[in-house]
Amino acid sequence: MTENKAAGSGRTVRYSGVPEPDFERNSINRRTDTLVYALGGLGEVGKNMYCIEHDDEIIIIDCGVLFPEDELMGVDYVIPDFTYLVKNQAKIKALIITHGHEDHIGGIPFFLQSIHLKQIYAPRFAKALIEKKLEEHRLSRSVKIVEIDGDSRVRTKHFNVGFFNTVHSIPDSLGVLINTPNGRIVETGDFKFDLTPIGIQSDYQKMAYIGQIGVTLLMSDSTNSGVPGFSISEKRVAASIVDQMRRTPGRLLVSTFASNVLRLNQILEAAVQCNRKVAVFGRSMENVVEIGKRMGVIKIPESSFISGNELNTLPANRICIVCTGSQGEPLAALSRIANGTHRFIKIIPGDTVLFSSNPIPGNGVSVSAVVNQLTRVGANVITNSPLTSFHTTGHAPVEEQKLMLNLIKPQYFMPVHGEYKMLVQHAATAAETGVPKDRHMICANGDIVVLRNEECFIANERIQTDAIYVDGNDASGLSTSVIKDRQILANNGMVAVIVTIDSRYNKILCRPSLVSRGFVYIKDSQTLLKEAELVVYDALKKKMLQRTTFGELKNTIRSCLEPFLYQRTNRNPIVIPVILNQQAAIAEIQSRTAHTRRP
Amino acid sequence: MTENKAAGSGRTVRYSGVPEPDFERNSINRRTDTLVYALGGLGEVGKNMYCIEHDDEIIIIDCGVLFPEDELMGVDYVIPDFTYLVKNQAKIKALIITHGHEDHIGGIPFFLQSIHLKQIYAPRFAKALIEKKLEEHRLSRSVKIVEIDGDSRVRTKHFNVGFFNTVHSIPDSLGVLINTPNGRIVETGDFKFDLTPIGIQSDYQKMAYIGQIGVTLLMSDSTNSGVPGFSISEKRVAASIVDQMRRTPGRLLVSTFASNVLRLNQILEAAVQCNRKVAVFGRSMENVVEIGKRMGVIKIPESSFISGNELNTLPANRICIVCTGSQGEPLAALSRIANGTHRFIKIIPGDTVLFSSNPIPGNGVSVSAVVNQLTRVGANVITNSPLTSFHTTGHAPVEEQKLMLNLIKPQYFMPVHGEYKMLVQHAATAAETGVPKDRHMICANGDIVVLRNEECFIANERIQTDAIYVDGNDASGLSTSVIKDRQILANNGMVAVIVTIDSRYNKILCRPSLVSRGFVYIKDSQTLLKEAELVVYDALKKKMLQRTTFGELKNTIRSCLEPFLYQRTNRNPIVIPVILNQQAAIAEIQSRTAHTRRP
Repeated sequence: MTENKAAGSGRTVRYSGVPEPDFERNSINRRTDTLVYALGGLGEVGKNMYCIEHDDEIIIIDCGVLFPEDELMGVDYVIPDFTYLVKNQAKIKALIITHGHEDHIGGIPFFLQSIHLKQIYAPRFAKALIEKKLEEHRLSRSVKIVEIDGDSRVRTKHFNVGFFNTVHSIPDSLGVLINTPNGRIVETGDFKFDLTPIGIQSDYQKMAYIGQIGVTLLMSDSTNSGVPGFSISEKRVAASIVDQMRRTPGRLLVSTFASNVLRLNQILEAAVQCNRKVAVFGRSMENVVEIGKRMGVIKIPESSFISGNELNTLPANRICIVCTGSQGEPLAALSRIANGTHRFIKIIPGDTVLFSSNPIPGNGVSVSAVVNQLTRVGANVITNSPLTSFHTTGHAPVEEQKLMLNLIKPQYFMPVHGEYKMLVQHAATAAETGVPKDRHMICANGDIVVLRNEECFIANERIQTDAIYVDGNDASGLSTSVIKDRQILANNGMVAVIVTIDSRYNKILCRPSLVSRGFVYIKDSQTLLKEAELVVYDALKKKMLQRTTFGELKNTIRSCLEPFLYQRTNRNPIVIPVILNQQAAIAEIQSRTAHTRRP
Repeated sequence: MTENKAAGSGRTVRYSGVPEPDFERNSINRRTDTLVYALGGLGEVGKNMYCIEHDDEIIIIDCGVLFPEDELMGVDYVIPDFTYLVKNQAKIKALIITHGHEDHIGGIPFFLQSIHLKQIYAPRFAKALIEKKLEEHRLSRSVKIVEIDGDSRVRTKHFNVGFFNTVHSIPDSLGVLINTPNGRIVETGDFKFDLTPIGIQSDYQKMAYIGQIGVTLLMSDSTNSGVPGFSISEKRVAASIVDQMRRTPGRLLVSTFASNVLRLNQILEAAVQCNRKVAVFGRSMENVVEIGKRMGVIKIPESSFISGNELNTLPANRICIVCTGSQGEPLAALSRIANGTHRFIKIIPGDTVLFSSNPIPGNGVSVSAVVNQLTRVGANVITNSPLTSFHTTGHAPVEEQKLMLNLIKPQYFMPVHGEYKMLVQHAATAAETGVPKDRHMICANGDIVVLRNEECFIANERIQTDAIYVDGNDASGLSTSVIKDRQILANNGMVAVIVTIDSRYNKILCRPSLVSRGFVYIKDSQTLLKEAELVVYDALKKKMLQRTTFGELKNTIRSCLEPFLYQRTNRNPIVIPVILNQQAAIAEIQSRTAHTRRP
């Protein structure tokens, strides 16, 4: 390899002791280098998509969505920009999924719309969730999903990929080891360490062995880089839930993340243990219960489940209701229960609602709205707090990140899966465990980390990666200009100005008429709008004294109306000028006029 | 009083041992009862406004705004509904302000627009802030502000009002004692207890004395009802800041709430102590520094302040920058520094940014955006955490709420200043300290608590209280229909359909033309819009075969276009039909046609 590099870059003369100039070192040799880049997941929590490329082969790890914040008006999902992969479609040898969370699998349907893929490798539970998802998108036939586990291997010409079990807030989470021609890469997937987990334990031995044989680059989950200490064990959460289940006098409603089927199973088993029957509400929760039963994760007897109709046949202290909506989602079961619009469940005195969850940042306001509404209708609401342990994180806090770093002992470190601040904090943690600062690869989406002969550097070129906004079923994405318009519409509303002119005679045929939405309350603002019409009319009349263009007329409307409206209301609505040219109409009328005159 | 009550309600015959029927007990005697109600502050954190009414007199405590959540599109403030007070204007004897936070004083300019008031009673610091605010609204001359402190008295015919000092996150916070003809009321204002505060200490003796002479109704701050334990002392925060100031090698930028002038002064004094000069940025911060200097709260020498221009004349470790923007407000100084658009400050290597604040619920996302951006441009960002104590709350957690309840020992308890869940939790705390459950007055805005002869009950009538949305300078409020329109505009955009018809001939003169904003990216959607135009055209042609009305035509447009657009895009934009009737135009054209034919 070293020879190759020297041979391939013979332009500069080398002096011993003088460091290689950066501009050369940082350029890529596309035939011999191994490239690592993210199309999503760096600088954000969401739409994870990491690619390893060598010569004519690309391996992709995960393909997620990002759930947009409020400022992305009406956008349903944000997905990675697949442009580079579409161009290099022939190179793609495998899409490997580490686990079944939406920020790792949610992009698959959109990916399959632009890229033909023969198979996806996914662990058992993720496989079931992806199949369900593809069914809903009517894409089931387009791809085969191959089940993988800790012992699986995926081999291509240049890569040899192995896996190891990790613990996360969903069953069947895998870390990935990629043997490349230029060194070993470990991508942890989402992980935490839990010394007493529910379900399969992290494979400490394999991780330690991987560390021993030597890893060039570690890519590790940064979500909780800012959280000191260790995480609470899932077993302790389970115990708290049993405890609460036992103590609760009336009905107990529990809301949690549907995908955490192990937690869900703990709740169900606690219910059985406390002699309660369980009713499950919410589409995603019902799906997961069904999958969980099929996979043997949920093992409580079928007779323990009751339907919505049977709720009234049992005493309150024999009932446990499990439902979606722990994030305050307005259409989820819990919100409908709180608002009294749920088909089966109304809150009755003595009901207790337990949130086995924390609000994801950004959902705090909607969660507290649901909590307030539940309290208002009479429920006793219990949320998670550090003192109660009704929930635990799925991501390694600082000390567990250190453990991963110590087990894998990488030469280079690339924090992934996190906002920029988290990546930086994770790198600081890596420095503490002995990865020197100049070996930290803190990257943005599209940056290329080059592996060359067991060394790493960031290349001086990048790959195009935009955020693609998906609204409705439009996988091609929503342009940012549309979103900008929505932001203005949202804050100030709109005023459309419709003017009919006759361009032949340079005349205004109809006085401007104004239509507004989301701007002012129309009943109270008749005079304002009438005045505005006059303002536009006067400006246009003046403008049309000389010859003019449609564009100039539109500008005239905007430039006279916007200051007028701002001055009167302190608001800046979008002004939409519509100019109708009545040529056709006039021809029509003239012919008709001629016609009517005939008799 | 007892005689009065008996005399005033002589309709039912009383049998001993039979409880008085509720419908009578809960009706108000407007001449002899004392009424307590909130126009804002119950079921929300914000727009606090509590009224005490007796016969022909009303005393108002506080007049705040609520900062809207994102779902209130573009609304700048939410203010209380003043309708009831406008109607009863003659009764208003005093507006008393407990302290200078926006959720207690922000509504004053709007209040003064609808109500003529001779004077406002406010403690020193609040007075300065209100004066500044009224100046900005050009309302300075409309009202006199009378300064009050812990020893002040406000006397009216029926009321005798006294005050006691409390500790809060702003100087000069007062609790209020109102002696009414039916019993004593204590309204705590916003408070916490801090055994080592900065500034004036809570007046424990006076509170204890008030408790001893007997209080009928306690109205107490519920903000932190869900937070266990005691709060961290402001002294400890001050110590942490000095410590950080000393440890920081380069420039230190500190962001905090401008109104917490005591904290601000601690930061300034720490800077002087560590041999740093201070530059202050952000309008509200500059205002507060100016007021603080005038009031003698800020006492560091004038030579310690430097301007933006002088920043480059000093070594980095001699500089401390204090700025607004701790809540991630996009236009505040800190956001502009992060984005590189600040006039004076660019982040340079070695800069440390300290957040002496916590994100208010709902601001988490914008704060973390600023943190990420600051980190990206190279700053070392330090946020507050339970381990570091760079911030403390201004509101009493549970144990301090208990202390207030123990000092005042009220007969009845009305939790105020909080979301519904907080009010309920505060009541539970009151129960623990010995206020029995049937004496808890958990109310909504507009509910009336009646004091009658040292007893309390909730009346069976209510006062009208809506939330008034203020956007721009429109104090009359924004209707909810406007906000609903904005929500749809925000999520789906709009499509206007303009059709020109000739109503005399029942003919379409111009094919429908579609204009959209925030719906689809227009360049990519020409065919969609063309097809949509045809759909509308066909539907209208069919409709106009028989006589029809404008309303029917508009409905036709909506009912053909909405399903078409949804089917093609999965989106539901607002469809705005605009129908132009070309009568006038036609007359015009006809006359011109006649004219042109003449020669």
